[in-house]
Formats: sequence, structure tokens, C-alpha cells
Amino acid sequence: MQDVENLTPPRLPDGEGEPLAFRDDEGEINSAFLRAAADAIDASDTASLLRLVEDFHESEMGDLLEALDTDHRPRLIELLGSNFDFAALTEVDDSVREEILEELETATVAEGVRDLESDDAVTILESLDDEDKAEVLDRLPAIERVALQRSLDYPEDSAGRRMQTEFIAVPPFWTVGQTIDFMRETPDLPETFYEIFVIDPAGHLLGAVALDRLLRSKRPITIEQLMDDEPDRVEATENQEEVARMFERYNLVSAAVVDDAGRLVGVMMVDDIVDVLEEEADADIKQLGGVHSDEELSDTVITTQRSRFPWLFANMCTAIIAANVIGAFSESLEHMVALAVLMPVVASMGGNAGTQTMTVAVRALATRELGRSNAWRIIRREALVGLLNGLVFAVIMGTIAGVWFQAFELGVVMGLALITVLLFAALGGIFVPLTLNRLGVDPAVSSGPFVTSITDIVGFFAFLGIATAWFGL
Amino acid sequence: MQDVENLTPPRLPDGEGEPLAFRDDEGEINSAFLRAAADAIDASDTASLLRLVEDFHESEMGDLLEALDTDHRPRLIELLGSNFDFAALTEVDDSVREEILEELETATVAEGVRDLESDDAVTILESLDDEDKAEVLDRLPAIERVALQRSLDYPEDSAGRRMQTEFIAVPPFWTVGQTIDFMRETPDLPETFYEIFVIDPAGHLLGAVALDRLLRSKRPITIEQLMDDEPDRVEATENQEEVARMFERYNLVSAAVVDDAGRLVGVMMVDDIVDVLEEEADADIKQLGGVHSDEELSDTVITTQRSRFPWLFANMCTAIIAANVIGAFSESLEHMVALAVLMPVVASMGGNAGTQTMTVAVRALATRELGRSNAWRIIRREALVGLLNGLVFAVIMGTIAGVWFQAFELGVVMGLALITVLLFAALGGIFVPLTLNRLGVDPAVSSGPFVTSITDIVGFFAFLGIATAWFGL
Repeated sequence: MQDVENLTPPRLPDGEGEPLAFRDDEGEINSAFLRAAADAIDASDTASLLRLVEDFHESEMGDLLEALDTDHRPRLIELLGSNFDFAALTEVDDSVREEILEELETATVAEGVRDLESDDAVTILESLDDEDKAEVLDRLPAIERVALQRSLDYPEDSAGRRMQTEFIAVPPFWTVGQTIDFMRETPDLPETFYEIFVIDPAGHLLGAVALDRLLRSKRPITIEQLMDDEPDRVEATENQEEVARMFERYNLVSAAVVDDAGRLVGVMMVDDIVDVLEEEADADIKQLGGVHSDEELSDTVITTQRSRFPWLFANMCTAIIAANVIGAFSESLEHMVALAVLMPVVASMGGNAGTQTMTVAVRALATRELGRSNAWRIIRREALVGLLNGLVFAVIMGTIAGVWFQAFELGVVMGLALITVLLFAALGGIFVPLTLNRLGVDPAVSSGPFVTSITDIVGFFAFLGIATAWFGL
Repeated sequence: MQDVENLTPPRLPDGEGEPLAFRDDEGEINSAFLRAAADAIDASDTASLLRLVEDFHESEMGDLLEALDTDHRPRLIELLGSNFDFAALTEVDDSVREEILEELETATVAEGVRDLESDDAVTILESLDDEDKAEVLDRLPAIERVALQRSLDYPEDSAGRRMQTEFIAVPPFWTVGQTIDFMRETPDLPETFYEIFVIDPAGHLLGAVALDRLLRSKRPITIEQLMDDEPDRVEATENQEEVARMFERYNLVSAAVVDDAGRLVGVMMVDDIVDVLEEEADADIKQLGGVHSDEELSDTVITTQRSRFPWLFANMCTAIIAANVIGAFSESLEHMVALAVLMPVVASMGGNAGTQTMTVAVRALATRELGRSNAWRIIRREALVGLLNGLVFAVIMGTIAGVWFQAFELGVVMGLALITVLLFAALGGIFVPLTLNRLGVDPAVSSGPFVTSITDIVGFFAFLGIATAWFGL
């Protein structure tokens, strides 16, 4: 936030002069702060607003925007005017950003985008419809427009979209002294950078020099002597998840982005990578829980209901198949109602054991820990774990069932069914994700319904089938 | 790896002179490479081994160690001798690291730890038993020993454990020129750094200067003029997850770590934070799937079976409660076996809807997106989504049930039961994690069994209860 020291302090609800804290000690948003902000927006009281958000980081501004009512959000931005840092809009959910941008004047957006680092500007431009995007781009200086347009031409979720197009690149024959002098004299350097790049006259990437390396070296040394001539580089078209795995594996803070001719076009920064990793983990967690990876906490009831429907529908279909299996044993159930009482236990144990194995497999596939070289070892391990837990629970649950219904043989049937279902749950839990992955389908999204089908069908079939055979029903 | 250019090329299985690639094009570990490495280890052929791992990064060495058989791992390290970078041991699963370290001589470990950055050294020391740890520490130079001992004294998973104790700290009255000269003349600087810190004579943190800032400034300017006097800082005792959230929120690459007196004791680096975020996401995913967060792909069958047992046992208990609910309606089931066929559909729909809501809630609590300020809005949204999906599936599944059993009224009962269970699933899915979180229990670990209990019990009770009342069974 810019200089607001000369503004009068805001009228605070509790009448004190102390500025209100945005978050309480536990890190939760302070509701008194929210009320004060909402009141100031309602009263169009810019001075109070400025005082409230005086020390805000863009991420806090983003959190404030999300916490405010929908119609207060664009109002806040309009009231703050040039004091509002548009980088805050990169910190909110996609749906919130789209909603806010729709309400703002194109001129306001263009003004805000102009001051941003290119990666942030791209995030905002992505959220505009094509018409507004063209209009905002038109209002930007030509150099910026071309750079942003180039980023936007790369595929969604590629390094080219996420990269920062501001970087420092010098020729290899420069000395350390020349380079440092250049940086001292150039006013328009990137906001932050951790390495400088070395390019030839055609813009091809030749190497990179970390800043600490530069600082440790004497002025007459040439960049060529210093540079790492195999710098970490990614293709602009590469998927951001692959790039993130590379950052993680090699502990990088930045990496050069090159086009298909090997020309330097930008730089990927670790803070963007941290966001990518979080998004990816978020998507995996949600998908395993049957939630669409795009679902956000700010979504409306209707959006949420629609996005949750397909998973429940898939589950309904597998449940109907399982019900058909039960239906095939109607006569047995009529003769022995205890079977109806106990059969959900078998299915539920199978479902949970299958989920355990599937969770481990899906996660290991995502982090590339599970691959061809160890797949058989893991399959063998899971099968043995399933068998072992099957034996353990056969004894426990078999005894419980036998005692409960005063029928030793029912306990034996329960035990046999549990061994069967826990073994199949393990096999399903590992083979389903492996197969989907081999077929190029994201195992996090689609493994669940398949594994549940297997455990339900095997569970009901094993329990009711063994019982029917054993008791001659 | 050090210079190995003068070594003879290894005998490769396929007789070619080309070095084998560690990973294939899809990023999977090349099994021909693994065989060649295993053969070289068996033959104690150090030259071949060195050739194979010539260009290895520590993370690749870690992946190789994990992929090798248990008894080959320490042998590889012994054969490589001083060519083995112990940092690779920070890249493997905890259990693998512990196993390897147990096999190695204390002298070898001490030698390997000596060359490491302090954060890596701490990771290795943590994996030793107390006796070996003391012995290794004894063999280190006093300065290193004291620094490592101090890190180890901080609680597990605290910033103090994860921090790097190598940093550059200068007095505020130094000039840019003095600072740069100091860095040029000091041979023993940290391996990488992104900022230099400013301290007073007692070691209290006064500020920080980013390297790019330093490079852009002219030599006579003093550090005091340049420094950010409110640098990002964390307490050494702070939990690493809190620190990671802070890095994420403020897009940091490093932050000063201070003791309770405000003295600079170390620096947290973003590459460690990336690991923390991954670990945390990993733990959440596993726990939601009913897997212990410590479970690793390298665990044995017995370890895995034991760690999976408690969750399955908890599930068995909830399933028995649900079975008791069914048992209370035995008579109804005897009169109308269709109820037994259809009841798992109701329970399974409820279970899945509950899991959806729970997944969203647990994740939002972990990322601090869900808090007091928006809890009621989310509860309301989830309840409405549950009700809406309940209505939709009441129509779909009610029609299917009615047609299947040629009984319109059975369809109505199914519909009413589904509305009830999907509403309760939503409420359970959000209230259980919120309540556990309020009680200080990790909602990712324990929400599952509670939510499943609720949906099973409500599901069976609603379906069988409504049917019994409706049909007068």
C-alpha cells in the first residue's frame, strides 16, 4: 500500500484508535475487522479503508476479498483505486477472480495489469472473456502486450503460461564488473531474481550464474568463466506439474524457460511452483474423495451440487450392480435373515481395505514413486497385507458373528468371506490405479468407483454365495 | 560425483559403450540400469559403479538406493567411499535411511555428515539411535557439533530442526562494497543463499538484504540504508507446517530463524519448505484414505499390515453398530426381502456423499481456508447441496426401485430415505471435521470412521424405518 500516513484514523466500531488486526492469534480472520471493512465500503469511506489495509500483503488483500460479500469485492477495489495492487487478484479462487473482473471497468483492469509481473498479469488475463482480454491488451504498451500475448499462446497449465517474462540476460564475454554495473544502472530490473542468464546474440540460452556466485567473484572475471553451462531449463510447452517435480527433485529456486529453438523466453520461479504443488495435492485429495478438482470453497450451491452429482451417479450405478448380486440370493436371505444383517459388514470392510490400498497406489503414482521397476513388489506386498488382514479379521469378526447369532458355522462363513473380500480389495486397490494409469487415465479421478464395485460385488457374492453353499439354502 | 573421467568404462550387459540412462523417456527407472548397478555391487566393481552414477544428482542417488535390494544399499555406499554424497540419504524414505545407517560404520557416517549442510546433517542424525548419534557427533569438529546439537535440541518438526545454520550476517554500518568484498574473500560461505542478514553485536536480527537488492546498489551505500528492517522471521520452535504456510502466503524463498531472544540462529530455505508441503499433503491424502501418515512404499508386509489394522478395526466397530440397526428390523426384512436387496444402495450413497463433504472440509481446514468467519456459510452450502442431491437421487433411484420391484410405494420409501441420508451425510461431513478440529484432534485422521458411522446408521435406520412404518411391517 502506498503512503497513507497523513490520512485520519478510521472510525472503528469499538471507538478505539488502535488499528484492528486482520487475523486473530490463531490465524483466523478477525470478524470485527471484516465488519469494519464492510462498513467502510458501504460508507464509501476510502480513508478508513486505506487505514485498515495499510500494511497488507497481496495475499492478505486476497483473503479479505474472499471473505467479503460478493458485491463488496469490486467496490473495495474501486474505492482503493491506484492503492489497490492487482497482484491480490492472483491470490483468490478462480471463480472469485472472474466475478470481480466482470464487475470492473476494462480501463481499471488495464491500469492494474500494467504494473504487474508478467506471470501475475497472465493469471488475470486468463480470467477475462476473449473480448475483454483483447480490450485490456490493446490498452497496454506494445512491448508488454507482445510478451503477454506470447505467454497466452502457450497451452494452459504449461510452463509458458506460468513463467515470468522479466529476466536479466547478458552476453558471455561480459565481466562480473560490467554485469554488476549494468544492474546498478538499469532502473527497470525484474522485481526479484536469483540468477542471471547468459545468451548468444540470437537469444539462445548458453548458461546461468547464480547471484551468490556473482557476488563472490572478482570484477575482472568473465561471465563465461563463472556460468553453469548446463543450467536447469524447461521447455515452454512443458506441463507445469512436470516442471514442479523437477524443481522438487533438484531443489531449484528458478529455472530458465526456453522455446523449441532453445531461445530464452522466460523464467519459472519457485513461488509459482509452490502454488502448482499445492494445486496438484489439492486436486489429488479432492478427486480421491469424489470431488471435482475445480471445486472451490467459494462455489455456489448449484455449482457444487452439479459438480458432485457425477460421482454420486457413478456410485449409484455400482450400488445397483451390487444390489443385483444380493437379489440373486433373495431366497437365501428369506431363509436366513442373519445374512441380511451381516452382509453390509463384509462389504464395508472390503470397501475400506480397498480404499487404503488405492490411496497408497494413487499417491505413489502421482509422485512417481510407483513405476514398472517396483510394481510387482508392491502388488505382492498389498496382496499379502490383504490376506493377512483377512485372516486376522476372519478370526475377530467370525467369532463375533458366531457368538451373536449363536451359530458357529455362520462365523466360519463370515471368516471365509472376509478373507476373500480383503484379498480382492487389495488386488483391486492396486490393479485398478495401475491399469488406469497405463491407459493414460488419471487414477485419482476414476479409481474409486471401480474399486468400490469390485469390493461390493465380491463381498456380497462371497458372503451370500458361501452361505448358500454351506447351508444348502 | 567427483572426477571419474580417467576410469575405464564399465562392462555393460548389452555390450555397448554408451552409458546407460537411469530413467527412461517416461521418467521411470530403467531396469537395465538397475541390473547393471546390482551386478557391479555384487562384483565389488567400483570403477563400473562410478561410471554409472557419474552425473548423478543426490536425488537420483536417493532413488537408486530405494530401488536397490536392501543388502545392496549399504554396499553401494561403501564401494563409492568418499565419492558418495551423504545428501542422497536425505532423499530416501525414513525407514530406508534408518536401515542403511544401521549397516554403516560410525566413522563412515561421521565422515559423510561432516561435508553436509546443517539441515541435511540433522536429518541424518535424527535417524540414528542415541548411542550412534553421540558417537558421530563426537567425531565432528567442535563448531559443527555445537551447531548440530542446538538444532537437535529443538522439537521434532520445528523450524529449528529444519533450518540451515550456515548464513551470512553483517553489521548495519558496513557498506555494499565492504559486504561484497567480504563475500569475495571468504572461502567458506554457505552453498546457496538468497539474502544476507543484518545483526547487532549480540546477534539480534536487525534486518535482511536480498541479493538482487545488494547487486543493484552502489558500493558506498550502507547496509542499513538498504535493509528491510522488518524481515520475514520465524521462531525456531515454530512448527514447520506453520512456517510452510507463511512461505506459501508471502511467496518467500528464505526466512530468518530466531531464538526466543530474537537472536539469529539459522535460515529456512524454500527447498525444505517444498518438502514440508509435500509431506503434509501426503499425510492428508493417506489419512483420508485410512492409511497411517508414516506408511512408506518401502515398508514390509508386517509393518504395513499392522499400520492398516486400526483403521479397519474402527470400521468393523461402526459396521457392527450399523448391523445392529439392521438387526432391529429383522422382521421387516423377513416380510419384504426387497428391503435387504436395496438397503446397501442407501448406505453407500450416504457414505459417498459424506466423504465428498468431509474431503472438502478437511482440506479447507488444513489450508486455513475454512475458519470461524466462513464456517456457517459452508455448513449452509453443504446442507443445501446435500438436500438438492437428495431430491435428485430420490427421483432417479426411487423410479429405478419402483420399476425394478414393480412397487411404486417402495420407490417412494427409497426416495424419502435418500433425501434423509444425503442431508445427514452433508451435515456429518462438515460437523465432524469442524468439531474434531475445535477439540484439537487432526480431522484428517479421525473424521472418516465417524462420518461413515453416521451415514450407515442414518441410512439403514431411515430406509428400514420408513419402510416398516409405511408398509406396517
